[in-house]
Amino acid sequence: MFKNAIIGQSGGPTAVINASLYGVIKEAMEQEQIHRVYGMKNGIEGLLKGNILDLKDVYETKNFDRLKHTPASFLGSCRFKLPEIWDETYQNIFEIFKEYEIGYFFYIGGNDSMDTVSKLSAYAKEIGFNIKIIGIPKTIDNDLYLTDHTPGYGSAAKFIATSVKEIMLDSKVYDMESVTIVEIMGRHTGWLTAASALALDTKDRCELMVYLPETPFDMEGFIESLKDRLKLNKTVIVAVSEGIKFADGTYVCETGQALSLDNFGHKSLGGCGKVLENEVKNKLTVKVRSIELNVLQRCASTCASKTDIDEAVMAGKNAVTYALQGETGKMVAFVREKESDYEIKTVSVDVENVCNKEKFFPATWIYDICNITDDFIAYVKPLIAGEVQVDYENGIPVFLEL
Amino acid sequence: MFKNAIIGQSGGPTAVINASLYGVIKEAMEQEQIHRVYGMKNGIEGLLKGNILDLKDVYETKNFDRLKHTPASFLGSCRFKLPEIWDETYQNIFEIFKEYEIGYFFYIGGNDSMDTVSKLSAYAKEIGFNIKIIGIPKTIDNDLYLTDHTPGYGSAAKFIATSVKEIMLDSKVYDMESVTIVEIMGRHTGWLTAASALALDTKDRCELMVYLPETPFDMEGFIESLKDRLKLNKTVIVAVSEGIKFADGTYVCETGQALSLDNFGHKSLGGCGKVLENEVKNKLTVKVRSIELNVLQRCASTCASKTDIDEAVMAGKNAVTYALQGETGKMVAFVREKESDYEIKTVSVDVENVCNKEKFFPATWIYDICNITDDFIAYVKPLIAGEVQVDYENGIPVFLEL
Repeated sequence: MFKNAIIGQSGGPTAVINASLYGVIKEAMEQEQIHRVYGMKNGIEGLLKGNILDLKDVYETKNFDRLKHTPASFLGSCRFKLPEIWDETYQNIFEIFKEYEIGYFFYIGGNDSMDTVSKLSAYAKEIGFNIKIIGIPKTIDNDLYLTDHTPGYGSAAKFIATSVKEIMLDSKVYDMESVTIVEIMGRHTGWLTAASALALDTKDRCELMVYLPETPFDMEGFIESLKDRLKLNKTVIVAVSEGIKFADGTYVCETGQALSLDNFGHKSLGGCGKVLENEVKNKLTVKVRSIELNVLQRCASTCASKTDIDEAVMAGKNAVTYALQGETGKMVAFVREKESDYEIKTVSVDVENVCNKEKFFPATWIYDICNITDDFIAYVKPLIAGEVQVDYENGIPVFLEL
Repeated sequence: MFKNAIIGQSGGPTAVINASLYGVIKEAMEQEQIHRVYGMKNGIEGLLKGNILDLKDVYETKNFDRLKHTPASFLGSCRFKLPEIWDETYQNIFEIFKEYEIGYFFYIGGNDSMDTVSKLSAYAKEIGFNIKIIGIPKTIDNDLYLTDHTPGYGSAAKFIATSVKEIMLDSKVYDMESVTIVEIMGRHTGWLTAASALALDTKDRCELMVYLPETPFDMEGFIESLKDRLKLNKTVIVAVSEGIKFADGTYVCETGQALSLDNFGHKSLGGCGKVLENEVKNKLTVKVRSIELNVLQRCASTCASKTDIDEAVMAGKNAVTYALQGETGKMVAFVREKESDYEIKTVSVDVENVCNKEKFFPATWIYDICNITDDFIAYVKPLIAGEVQVDYENGIPVFLEL
């Protein structure tokens, strides 16, 4: 069996995807069974172009630790879907594996990336190529099956909770009724938007209305509920997922505009906050504004959760352990040991049970359409715990860059 | 002369406006010449409604220090313009001053708020009311005359520089040409947008195009320059002020929409990033997206500049000193002692020379339309220096709230 390892990153970046990369590199470099550790630039797409680099220099650089706190994908990313049939793409990939003597393949990504892990391990099995292929989860969306949560989610949730709290203070400065709509990422699942509930200490969270993609959005119902909330609160915050849909299945953000498609055929979402803002302007005489939290949700390094960073490193490290134990076609997953006292361990799960599926926000954690239960708060609170110390130079954070 | 003091906040909030409030309260409470320290809720507007509170409890609260790191206006704000003629509004205000035995009046705000300071001190002089009226500058816009810079600007600049750096990393993850437009606050002046240049270490900053309101915006010229930049860089960041205008004086964000007006008759800006995004989509075959940094620019507590916080406290403290020295109708202003080794002292300046004016970004610090000189970098770097430690509870920052 070949003794070199290769690592790639795929899909949208997170604040901690490089912490997992750090974990993989560190563990792989320290294990005798592994000789060289390669990185593929821009994931499987770059691999196919031969964009491969030896990560020894990165590991030995003085500021290697900064990788843990560097947002975005250090190695670059891709949105490349492997063909459904075993064509020459697969042959080319395995030629490269042979050329570089790759015995271990690690891929850090979300559902689409786990599809790559699944397909490559199935192909390896078919051709009898002895390689251990392990997926490491990352997605701010928290929508992967078989894992308590995903690395990246805790930091995004912390950023969202912090920002919504600050926006809420900002919205209260004038002595007037106001509605602030905060548009949050989340194409099909509401995990991120629900994290806005962390911004309020009060049990009822009456100042906050939360709309997730899991519940069909009803514009009239929204306006009526908003009127009721404004009777109780001078300022109301409306947290909405970018992917909220009407009952007929059209995205709210599609109102008045056509959406473009990405490489995976997904519609590029964005703008539902503006749609709601316009509706409120038309229906109510109240000050209204909308705010898109946008990409800072996934790249605000200084707002990252320490728990999330530590767990992301652990996921990378344990991926190497599983591979060396001979496992393949697996994804590293988190299991919560106890409910009361938060403690996380990892297990390996079959990646074909994870890929191309989405874990939705539980219906039982939503009540009266736009409220989040305390069960969710209990679930999410440990994930945002702890703060990080990022290195600064000249007043701004410094990161590790290729 | 009366021995009580009153303090108010006015205009848009900043991340450090409460640090100045902290400075005023602390200093006023510690000076024997001042007896009670009152706060007006929602500035002069709240004062007229009798919304006045004794700040002794705030000063004595265990977590008083948290006020320094609390974003938005602790006392609430207003956008209230005093009449040009000395009508009953003035009589009512001074009746309240008499009732509460106010001898010292402190007002923390921007240009419009300094107008209030100017008018009240002129009226006091006219009626022979012995009161010391001092303005304390705050505005993220950095557009006040007679001061090296304004409290609030450094923290906003630090947030913008950090965010643009993170967005830049995020924009590079895919192996494709891309343009990211970052819309930054700044109605008439480009101080905030220029701070995006801090995100790049390189001397030429060729990946960044910066458009400020001080330079008329030419859409064709922008597209041509962007094409040139894309020949040199795979990813380009375009930082634009919300208030950029075409040569004919119309706001770029007015393209295709009518803008609403606020209480001061200012148009509510926003959306020029989207206008540019659409233009790039129509003209070039490159991935493009736009991001509005929005209100987090003025309320991101965890990204505040330590220098800015310290100076905001000093401005509040010294306002009390000036009042006790008998000064009135003044604003606290910053003077940079030396160019080489950053050191700031305060002076008092005549508020009528400050109010209703705007200090523009120097034309000599802009070259080739969309580039910022190193002179600006030298000016702004000390203002973003140092990080702050905010208190956290349950994973999110905790603030002092009324």
